[in-house]
Amino acid sequence: MNEIIFATFNNHKVYEINKIINNYKIVSLKEVNFTDEIIENDNTFIGNSLIKCKAVYECYKKPVLADDSGICVNQLNGDPGIHSARYGSPEFNDKERYQFLLSRLDKNKDLSASFVCALVLFINPNRIYIAQEETKGSITFNPKGNNGFGYDPIFYLSEYDKTMAELSDEEKNFISHRGKAARILKKFLEENKI
Amino acid sequence: MNEIIFATFNNHKVYEINKIINNYKIVSLKEVNFTDEIIENDNTFIGNSLIKCKAVYECYKKPVLADDSGICVNQLNGDPGIHSARYGSPEFNDKERYQFLLSRLDKNKDLSASFVCALVLFINPNRIYIAQEETKGSITFNPKGNNGFGYDPIFYLSEYDKTMAELSDEEKNFISHRGKAARILKKFLEENKI
Repeated sequence: MNEIIFATFNNHKVYEINKIINNYKIVSLKEVNFTDEIIENDNTFIGNSLIKCKAVYECYKKPVLADDSGICVNQLNGDPGIHSARYGSPEFNDKERYQFLLSRLDKNKDLSASFVCALVLFINPNRIYIAQEETKGSITFNPKGNNGFGYDPIFYLSEYDKTMAELSDEEKNFISHRGKAARILKKFLEENKI
Repeated sequence: MNEIIFATFNNHKVYEINKIINNYKIVSLKEVNFTDEIIENDNTFIGNSLIKCKAVYECYKKPVLADDSGICVNQLNGDPGIHSARYGSPEFNDKERYQFLLSRLDKNKDLSASFVCALVLFINPNRIYIAQEETKGSITFNPKGNNGFGYDPIFYLSEYDKTMAELSDEEKNFISHRGKAARILKKFLEENKI
């Protein structure tokens, strides 16, 4: 089975992607012993995904997949956005981070938000496919659920009457920003041998 | 038939692409009365293609195709590269420009070169497909042929014993950098409704 290096150290992301792109062997940066620091200094999800792909491709000369994702809250003009993973402090755990986000919000104002995921499939520097997807929802001050990761417990989906963290793996992959983008790449990978 | 705006004013490029991507209506910037100046200030073909796509998409909110291409001469460390279209002077015609290139070269040194074409299909800001292709050849000091455009008369293909400008339209599209990249996008467009 052909291999794609997934430019992430986040086990949750590896788990989610593996469930969808199951016709390739997805290996994480841990598995390939990648130790360089990647400076993600673009101001877009797609730009940062591309930076990760280039850095990792440079090392291994193999197809790379990168995910840059985050939560965009309308009341905060789209913040934390690309800064989601380190919002507040890089030392925060997931719970501290989403509590920090809640502390910045006015409960009585617009709480609509979206999860955004930019997946870049960097087959080589000459062949790149980019798919960015989003899932709309709203922030709840009543965190719930133990599945998923990150901001999932405070991201409420009204059509399910559940937070993202209350969804099963299959449900989350079906409706999530990452799941949608991954299915687009899966289709591409079925049509194009890499 | 669905429409794709081709972010170029170059009729030769429109002609070549139209011959390959014939299942979509390819319209040029002239046809959509685009008049803005686009500042292509990236240092890569792909980067400049992306800049053109974004600028044109911003105006029309329709799928955009962009081509950034050029000739890379090894003796000149890859120059003129991304500067090919304006090399020497933006006022030069094609003949003046390739003569200027010849004037910069030492006939007795390595004359190998490649034509590079980065095509970007910008379906929307969230779905982008990039294909860069190249065709290897060498520079001849004996310009020949009346087909094609640009540096074609001085780009010699040993396996055909012809310059790029001596090839028929069909032959050029079959082997050229632009033809190869366009066929990759054509396949993508057949598999993905846009």
